[in-house]
Amino acid sequence: MPTLQEFNDNLIQQTPAMPIVLSEPVPLADLPTPALIIDLDVFDRNLLQMQEYLEGHGMGLRCHTKMHKCPIIARKQLDAGALGVCAAKVSEAEVMQVNGVSRILITSPVVTEDKIARVVKLASTNPDLQIVVDDASAAGQLNEAARKADVVVGVLIDLDPGMGRTGIETGLPALTLGKYIGDECQHLRFDGLQMYAGNCMHIEGYEQRRDKYLHIMEKGQVTRSLFEDAGIVVPVFSGGGTGTYNIEPGLGLLTDLQAGSYLFMDIEYRDIGGSKSELFDDFEPSLFVLVTAISKPQQRLITVDGGFKSFASDKMAPQFRDVEGVIFHWGGDEHGIVQLNNPSVELKLGDKLPMLTPHCDPTVNLHDYYYPVRNGLVEEIWPITGRGRSQ
Amino acid sequence: MPTLQEFNDNLIQQTPAMPIVLSEPVPLADLPTPALIIDLDVFDRNLLQMQEYLEGHGMGLRCHTKMHKCPIIARKQLDAGALGVCAAKVSEAEVMQVNGVSRILITSPVVTEDKIARVVKLASTNPDLQIVVDDASAAGQLNEAARKADVVVGVLIDLDPGMGRTGIETGLPALTLGKYIGDECQHLRFDGLQMYAGNCMHIEGYEQRRDKYLHIMEKGQVTRSLFEDAGIVVPVFSGGGTGTYNIEPGLGLLTDLQAGSYLFMDIEYRDIGGSKSELFDDFEPSLFVLVTAISKPQQRLITVDGGFKSFASDKMAPQFRDVEGVIFHWGGDEHGIVQLNNPSVELKLGDKLPMLTPHCDPTVNLHDYYYPVRNGLVEEIWPITGRGRSQ
Repeated sequence: MPTLQEFNDNLIQQTPAMPIVLSEPVPLADLPTPALIIDLDVFDRNLLQMQEYLEGHGMGLRCHTKMHKCPIIARKQLDAGALGVCAAKVSEAEVMQVNGVSRILITSPVVTEDKIARVVKLASTNPDLQIVVDDASAAGQLNEAARKADVVVGVLIDLDPGMGRTGIETGLPALTLGKYIGDECQHLRFDGLQMYAGNCMHIEGYEQRRDKYLHIMEKGQVTRSLFEDAGIVVPVFSGGGTGTYNIEPGLGLLTDLQAGSYLFMDIEYRDIGGSKSELFDDFEPSLFVLVTAISKPQQRLITVDGGFKSFASDKMAPQFRDVEGVIFHWGGDEHGIVQLNNPSVELKLGDKLPMLTPHCDPTVNLHDYYYPVRNGLVEEIWPITGRGRSQ
Repeated sequence: MPTLQEFNDNLIQQTPAMPIVLSEPVPLADLPTPALIIDLDVFDRNLLQMQEYLEGHGMGLRCHTKMHKCPIIARKQLDAGALGVCAAKVSEAEVMQVNGVSRILITSPVVTEDKIARVVKLASTNPDLQIVVDDASAAGQLNEAARKADVVVGVLIDLDPGMGRTGIETGLPALTLGKYIGDECQHLRFDGLQMYAGNCMHIEGYEQRRDKYLHIMEKGQVTRSLFEDAGIVVPVFSGGGTGTYNIEPGLGLLTDLQAGSYLFMDIEYRDIGGSKSELFDDFEPSLFVLVTAISKPQQRLITVDGGFKSFASDKMAPQFRDVEGVIFHWGGDEHGIVQLNNPSVELKLGDKLPMLTPHCDPTVNLHDYYYPVRNGLVEEIWPITGRGRSQ
C-alpha cells in the first residue's frame, strides 16, 4: 500500500517514455482509429525552421512541452539546439526531468506546500530547474522549503501582460518582488523575467497582432529597465510564442521564445494570418487525427469515429486534410457527423482519413500515443508520457 | 519488439484497473490538483436511486461506461442490479471485458477489418458480447469473420432517431436489415433493437423534452411492430438516457435504459430542468474537479490551476460548488480566471476548491484517476482504466 506521495512518484517514474519499435512497419490504413498521427517529414522541417530562424535573429528557443507532452520530442528539440524547455505544471516538469530533460522552466507559479515540496525535490538533483514566481509570500515559502533542503532554486519573475492570468503587475510591484528575492531569499536564484503575452498569440492579422504585441511589451521593456537601473542583472527574459515568433526579433526584448505549436500547427494558428499571406502558413501542419467513416445513416451525411474525446473542443471543429466541400459537425463525445455538401472525394464506409486538429495542445492531451508516419508507414509508437500531468 | 496487435493487447491488459489502497487516508486538501474527486455518499445514492426507479417501472439499466470509463464503477453498477453495460467503442469494451465485465453492448457500429477482428475476438470468449449494426454490408463482414472463427456474435440493429449520427432508417430499411441478418447471417444472433435519442437528452424543460421524445420514438414503436408482424422476436429494445429516464416508463417501449450521467451529474444535465423543479436535480452532482487558487494578478481576479486540460470545454464553463458571486473564465489549457464580482467566500492563494463539471463524460476522459472521498478523506484511488480508449 503506497502513500499518496509514493503513488505520485510511481506515476511519474513508471509511465512509458521510450519509443515502442514495432516488429514490422504498419501502413497508416491499418492503425486503430481515432489515432493521433505525426507527418515526420513536416515535423522535421518545422523543428529545424524555428530553430534556425531564432538563431539567425540572436534568440534562443525555450520550447513549450505543454503542447506535445512528450520527452522523446523534447529531446529532439534540445538536440536541434533549443536552450531548454518550458513545462506548464510541476508534474509535467517531473515527467521531463525523470526522462532525461534537465533545462526546464516551470511557467506557472506554485503556492501550496505539496507543490513547493515537489519543486524543491526536482531542484535538489537538477540545478538547471527554474520556476516562475509572482507573489512575495509564495516566493518566501519556496525559499524556506529550499533552505530546509539546502537547495537553490532558479526563479524568473512572471509579469502579467494585462491578461490577468498569472504574473505580478509590471513596473514597481515587479521590482519590489525582485528586491525581496535578492534581499531575503538566499535560496532562490534570480534568473530573470517571464512575460508571456498569451492575449496576443491568436489575434487575426499580422499587423494587428504586431501592434498589440508591441504595445503590451512596452511595459515589459520598462520593467526590465527598472531592474537594470536598480542594479539587478536580468540574464533571461522569456516569453512569446508561435504567434509572435517573427515579431519579437524586431523588438529585441526577449532572450528566448516559448514556442510550442510551431511544431505541429493547428487550425487555430493557421487562421490567424501570416505576415505574407492570408493564412499563417510559415509552418505546415504535421499533426492529424486519423478517423474512420463508420456509419451512413442519411444520404447527405457520413459519420466518423472521432468527437470530443479525440479533438479539442474549446475552439472550432476539426477539418479534413484531403477532402473539401464537406462540413464536420460535432456528433458528441465519440463521433463527428460530416455533411456532404459537394465533396471533392467520395467518402465511403471504412475510409480512414486524416483530420487537421482544431487546437493542438488540448487535442494531444486526449491521446496516449503518437503514431509518427513517414512514407505512409508507422515504424514506432511514441508514448505521450506527460498526458494528463496537469498537476 | 511487438506487432501493432500485441501493442494494442498489452495496452488493454496492462492498464491498471484495481483500486489503489493508500497506506493512510489523505485529507481532501492534500490532493495534488487538479484532481477528479467523487463524493461517495452522493455517488452511492445516485447508484441506488436509478436502479430502484427503473426496477420499480419494469425496466432494466444498461449503464453506459463511456461516461465513467472505469471497471470498478461498472462492477458496482452490476452488483446493484444493472443488467449490463454499454461501451461506446471496441477498445472500451475490451477494457471492461479484460476486467471482469461480460454483459457488454457496443453502441457504435464497426466497419473495418481490424475492428471487426477485435469484436470477434471478444465474442470468442464472451457469449454475452453484443454490438450494434446499421449496415447490411458491414453486418455481412462481421458475420463472415465470426463464421471463420466459429463464433456467434449478438447484434442489435441500431435505429437512427433522426439525428443522423449512427443507425439505419427506421421502418422498412431496418426490417430489411433484420431479415438479411436472420436469413443470411448464421453467425450473428439478432438480439433486438437500439434507438438512442441523443437529440432529446438535453432539451430544456421537461414537457418539451417529453413531447419531442415521444414524437421521435413513435418511429421506433412502428419499427418494432414491423419486426414482430414479420415474425421476428425483439427481445431487447435498448436506448434512452439520464435525460429521459422518467419519460420512458410512461411510453413502455424500451426494455432497458442506457443511462450514464445520472451517477455523476454535471452542469449540462442540471440545467435541462426537471419534472418538478426548474433544475434537473433528481440526481445530485457527485463528481467535482478540485482546483487550487495559484495566482492573483489583479485586484478583482484570482486564477485557479484548471483549464481545458481539466474540464470538458465543449459546452459551458465549470462552476464552483461552494462559492457564489464569481464567474469562471477559461484561462487556456491550464488555468481558469475567476472574476470576483461579489464572492460569497473570500478566495485566497492556496485555497483548494471543488468545481462542478460542465459535461461529465469528456471531463472524466481528461483524467487518469478518481479520488473518491468520504467524510473528507480519500482512502483509495481508482484508475480510469478506459480513459483514452476511444478506438
